[in-house]
Formats: sequence, structure tokens, C-alpha cells
Amino acid sequence: MDISARVQQIAADALAASRLLSRCTAGEKNAALMRMAEELLHSRDRILAGNQRDVAAAREKGLSAAMIDRLTLQDATLEAMARGLREVAALPDPVGRVTSMWRRPNGLLVGRMRIPLGVIGIIYESRPNVTVDASALCLKSGNAVILRGGSEAIHSNLAIASVLQEVLKKSSLPDHAIQVIPFTDREAVSVLLTLDEQIDLIIPRGGEELIRAVVSQSKIPVIKHYKGVCHIFVDASADMDMAVNICVNAKAQRPGVCNALETLLVHADIAGDFLPKAAEALEQKGVRLRGCGITRKILKNIDAATEEDWYAEYLDLILAVRVVASMDEAVAHIEKYGSLHTESILTKDYANAQRFLNEVNSSTVLVNASTRFSDGFELGLGAEIGISTTKLHAYGPMGLEELTTSKFIIYGDGQVRT
Amino acid sequence: MDISARVQQIAADALAASRLLSRCTAGEKNAALMRMAEELLHSRDRILAGNQRDVAAAREKGLSAAMIDRLTLQDATLEAMARGLREVAALPDPVGRVTSMWRRPNGLLVGRMRIPLGVIGIIYESRPNVTVDASALCLKSGNAVILRGGSEAIHSNLAIASVLQEVLKKSSLPDHAIQVIPFTDREAVSVLLTLDEQIDLIIPRGGEELIRAVVSQSKIPVIKHYKGVCHIFVDASADMDMAVNICVNAKAQRPGVCNALETLLVHADIAGDFLPKAAEALEQKGVRLRGCGITRKILKNIDAATEEDWYAEYLDLILAVRVVASMDEAVAHIEKYGSLHTESILTKDYANAQRFLNEVNSSTVLVNASTRFSDGFELGLGAEIGISTTKLHAYGPMGLEELTTSKFIIYGDGQVRT
Repeated sequence: MDISARVQQIAADALAASRLLSRCTAGEKNAALMRMAEELLHSRDRILAGNQRDVAAAREKGLSAAMIDRLTLQDATLEAMARGLREVAALPDPVGRVTSMWRRPNGLLVGRMRIPLGVIGIIYESRPNVTVDASALCLKSGNAVILRGGSEAIHSNLAIASVLQEVLKKSSLPDHAIQVIPFTDREAVSVLLTLDEQIDLIIPRGGEELIRAVVSQSKIPVIKHYKGVCHIFVDASADMDMAVNICVNAKAQRPGVCNALETLLVHADIAGDFLPKAAEALEQKGVRLRGCGITRKILKNIDAATEEDWYAEYLDLILAVRVVASMDEAVAHIEKYGSLHTESILTKDYANAQRFLNEVNSSTVLVNASTRFSDGFELGLGAEIGISTTKLHAYGPMGLEELTTSKFIIYGDGQVRT
Repeated sequence: MDISARVQQIAADALAASRLLSRCTAGEKNAALMRMAEELLHSRDRILAGNQRDVAAAREKGLSAAMIDRLTLQDATLEAMARGLREVAALPDPVGRVTSMWRRPNGLLVGRMRIPLGVIGIIYESRPNVTVDASALCLKSGNAVILRGGSEAIHSNLAIASVLQEVLKKSSLPDHAIQVIPFTDREAVSVLLTLDEQIDLIIPRGGEELIRAVVSQSKIPVIKHYKGVCHIFVDASADMDMAVNICVNAKAQRPGVCNALETLLVHADIAGDFLPKAAEALEQKGVRLRGCGITRKILKNIDAATEEDWYAEYLDLILAVRVVASMDEAVAHIEKYGSLHTESILTKDYANAQRFLNEVNSSTVLVNASTRFSDGFELGLGAEIGISTTKLHAYGPMGLEELTTSKFIIYGDGQVRT
């Protein structure tokens, strides 16, 4: 069987599975998730053996130490995966929930019921834990999933998936609810992205290059974010200590993630006091600053920021700094250079806090808190399948509910239209 | 200025307008809508003159009488447009509504606030009233709109839009909140559909051919339905009179619309009694039936349905009829041949009603009511911008709320992530 035919078969099996899965109860799904957690730990040797093949191949190819580190599974990783499965089992099931219901003048009772999206394709890079996390979230939300991981993790992913699939076979859930594309060829992805009759949604997880390649090819809706150019605006009235603390946390606590701070905007009235204190604290954490002209009059020894810096997602201990004359200027900067991801205002001024929350239409907008809270777990969604910076369907961190849609259900007693 | 540059300028102006419009109050938007209703009636002569140019050109081209009828504006059409504007003004504004808010263990107060999508492109065919309806709904939901109507209605659409735009210019709303693409060339649409940095959503309104052309070209998310192959399943326990009445209404009250009945599925246990009565009532309305083998044993004089009939959206006084042995068979038929639009079960059986509502995942599912209720007004959404049969973002009839998305808003008091 050639690759194209095999991928089409996988998608057809997923569609059939999704219809059965949409009717399974939360009890059935949770039992399977709990069993998967157990079996992952019992199958330690098999999974680690698959992983060692991937790690050996990565070494042979000369991949970087960081890449190999992300690829390598250990007992602690397996335990974290099992814990993740149990946590998803404990979350409320969004499927079947009637979110509202109203009576029409003709007596019709109209409601909206949440239902699964159907079939979801996940296209991701190296970390094998995505195989478990994405499977758990899709299963719990009643969606069949087709997983396509990076070629460097293929044996790890197949080993993990085989454990999950064995649990499905012994359960009341459909066997094809979780499938992995067993080919590393690019053709497999190209075929997958054309199957809009079977697949409802594609979620790419990885670098901007991967995501752009998926978007440009896909006939299926894609939920994604290209990058997170997150801003903090330190208003004239900001509490100085709080502002320093939040900026350091947002930039340096974990610089390689999408909700880390990339550009700091500082009100001119506070810049002279604030910037030296912030720079000292940031430099202690190893952060290098790049500033606008005014910033460089206050902080003499930093590099100049170029136009490109305002667009940059460094994912590194580098921070662009700009002094602005007003909140309007800060909002205009965010509109021009931002990525619709996450922005925070630090202020004691009530009106400015409310205006910033109302006027900035990024997917997450905060007052007096770190941008690092833009995350499904931290916001209380219970889990996160990804973050969207496009406004259709989901905007911001996505949990289980964002993996469902809603249909209209209508109870009548003979109504016809006149 | 060439077409491509002009369309890009329109999109850039729309993006700038959308940012201003997102901050306008319901009061400002409603005042403009009420004023537009007045001005449309005052500008009767100008609009009808534009329309007469289109109608004359249509006659010259030899368009069908039905097409010319749909294109022709009259005083009554203008009054209906003005009434529509006033009705949209009276609807609640979805923008700024905080739909939920919760406290996190660290004290963060997290909420979801509805915001406009941004810029919406509407691509439609002949009826000039879409120019008013779509403008009103987009404006009220805080979205800038770019309208691209059919070439046969270009002078009508430009005349109507110029009235709306004059009101914008005299109001506090941005001038470019409503724009019409002034070219009838296909190139204009092709360029428009590539502008995913400026435009958030495309809604095509028209026949399947138009919609498929838009989907195949668009880099922007498209919300659409290709067709409505709506089913009624008459269960064994259905009330006979109610079932006949609903089937006649669903098929014959307005056969040319997407929520009209196209395939009737009848439980074998009731087929012998029900089909002759239904056939008589349907034939009185001029409906021709096409049946499966069993149906044709009961109704001797009807044509045979072929495999193609089960997929057909007739939009005409034709009905495909199939006798099924069970509800499972009915659900399987709908899954195989349906279009995820609207399905209704007619039954007295409680368990079957609940099972049908749960198991059929079309966008609208009814019990004991006509499929014709699958409509934004009829379901109580207050208005309708279109119907979606794809599950992302909106599924089923779409009102004002479906023209918005939600962002996360977070009130903190110094929280950082640990």
C-alpha cells in the first residue's frame, strides 16, 4: 500500500471512530485514560527501547545536545505522562453539556449542546510527550486524533501510541480513536492536509517555519500561533517594586517560551526612575537590553534597538526596551508590532487599567501580572492543547472546551413555519 | 491605481477602521444604524436609479426573469431594508460582554470578554439587500466589512453603500467601516482572498459553485455551507397528522432554501399507513416523490430514487423517500448522505427523541418540528449572517455573537509565575 492510500485509510478510520467516540460516556473515556496511565508505566521497557533507537539515530545525525535532551525519555518523563493522563481524566467532560436553552414565542425550546469537533490532526516536532498529552485531550473531548510527530521521534511515538492503542482495543472505545502516521516522509503530511472531508481541524505545534508550511498547504482549518511578541507597558503610576519583579519574571523565568516578555514599553514619566532599577535586576538574570534612543540616554551602555527588534520573538535572554510618551503610544506600538498573543499593563491608575483591557485586543490582556500566566493551566482551563492568535473558533490558550463546538437542539411539539 | 493596489488599500483602510470601531459604544453604533434607515428611504431616487441601470443591463444580457426579479428593488424592498437596520439597532450589542469570570488560587481574576473579529469580507450574488443586512450586522458587532457583490448588482450596491457611507462620515464611527469593492473583475476577489494579514473572516453567500471557488482560493478562514440536504425521520410512533403537516411544511413552504426538506426517512412499521397520507398531501402541493424499492411497493406510481438522489439538494418540489428498518438505519443514512445542516425526528417515543438529539451531530437537530426553523431569526438569535456546516468557530445559524470572538482579561495585583 502506498503512502497516500495508507494516510487516506487512516483518515477514513478516524472519521468512523470519531462518530462512535462522540457517543461514549465520560465514564468510559475516563476509565480508558486511567488505564493508559497504568499501562504506560508497565510498558516502560518497550517505550524506552523505542526511544533509545531515536536517541542513537539523533546522535549519529549529529543533532544538538539540546535537541537530544528534548528527545530523551526517562522514568521521570513517563511518570509525568501518566500523571497528565490522570489529570485529564479528572477534568469535567465538555461533551453533551447544554450551555444555554431558551423558549421561543411559538413554544419551541431551543438549546445549544457541546459536541466534539470530530477528527483532529496534530503535527508536531520532537518532544514525544505531545503524543500522550494530545491523545488524552482529544480522547476526553470525544475527538479522534491523527498524530504526526517529528521523524527524529518516530520510534518513541510509535511505542507510546501502541500502548495507548492496546488500551483502546481492550476498552469500549473505538480502536482507531488514536492513530499515528507511521511514515516520516513529507508526502504523508501533504496528503493529510488535503483530507478536509474527514479531518475537521489541524493543530501544528512547533516553530514558525513548521506552522507556516502547514498553513500554506492545508485545505483543513488550522489553529495556530506563529509567534509570541509579548509586551509589558509600565505606566507612569506603576508600583516600582512590583513592576521590576513582574518584568524579571516575564522575561527571565523561562525565556524560551511563547508567553515570555519580548518588548518592554515604559511611560516617559517613570522611565528615568524605573529603567535603571529594572536594568539592574534584569542584568543580574543575564538579560541583555536593546533600547530606543530615549532608553539609551537613561541606560548608557546598552545596544540600540533596530526596527527589526520591535518585531522580534527572541526566545532568549534579550529584551527590547522603548520609552513611550503615553498609553496611546504604547497601544499603537502593540498594534503595529505585536502578534496578538499576550500584553500586560502595570499601573495603579484605574482608568488606564480598564482602558488597556478594553482597547488591546490581543488574545490575553493582563493588569499587574506577568505575561507568563497566558497558559491553559495557569488560567484555569485545566489543560492546554495549544494557543491561538487567530480569532476564529478559539483565541488564546485552548483547553478541552475549545476542542468542541456546539449544535442547536430543538424540542418541538408539532411546530411548522408560517 | 491598478485593481490589486486598490483592493489592498481597501483592506488596509478596513483594518484601521476595525480598530477604531472596536472601541465605539453600542449607543454610537445604534445611532448610525437608525440614521442609515432614514437615509436609505430619503435616498430612494438615487438607489432606484442605480438599480435601474443594473436591471437594464440584465435585460440586455438576457438574464432569466427570476434573476431579474431578485435584482429589482422597489419601495417595499427599501422599506424592508430600513426595517432591518432598525431591528439590528434594537438587538443587544455582543461586544464587551464578559461571559464568565473566575478566581484562580493565586488571586488572579480571569475573565473572557467578547470582542469583534476585526475585518470581515462578504462575497455574495445578486440580491442587493445583502449589502444592507451584512453591513448592519458587521457594524453592530464592531467589525469593518468589505463587500463584494455580484457584477449584475454593482450599481445598486454602490448606490446603497454610498448612502451608508455618508452616514458614517457624519457620525463618530470610522469612515471605512463599510466599503464596497468597486470592480467587477475576478482579479479583485483573487487579491482579496490573499489578504490574511488584514482580513479575519470571509463569508461567501450564494450557490455551491461560488462557495467552492472562494474556499479553493482563500488564505483567510471561510465560514460556509455548501448545501443543505435536510432529513426528516418519521419514527414508528410518530403522530400521523403532525408528521404529515410537518413534512408538507418542511418540503413545500419554501422549497428553494437550504433548510427545506430533501430526503424523508420513514420507519418500516409506519410506512404502510403514513406514506399514502403523506404522498397525497405532498402531491397536492405539487411535490413529486422519488422512492426506494420499499417505498415504491407502497406508492406504486412514483419514480425510483437513484444513489444520486440521496445526495441531492433539489431546491425544488421534489422529495426523495426511503423506508428504513430502524432508527439506527436512519442515523446511518444521515451520516452517509447528509450535509451536517438540519435533521428532524418525528416521534412520540421519549428515548428515541433523546437518542436522535444526542447522536445526530448535524448543526441543527429537532424533535417534532419543521426543518424550516433552522434559521437565525426563528431560533431567536435576532438576526442571521449565514449558516455554517463546518464545525470550526460557528456551527449552524450565525447571529451577532458568532461575528465576535473572546479574549482573556486578567486582573492581577502583582502575581508572577513560580
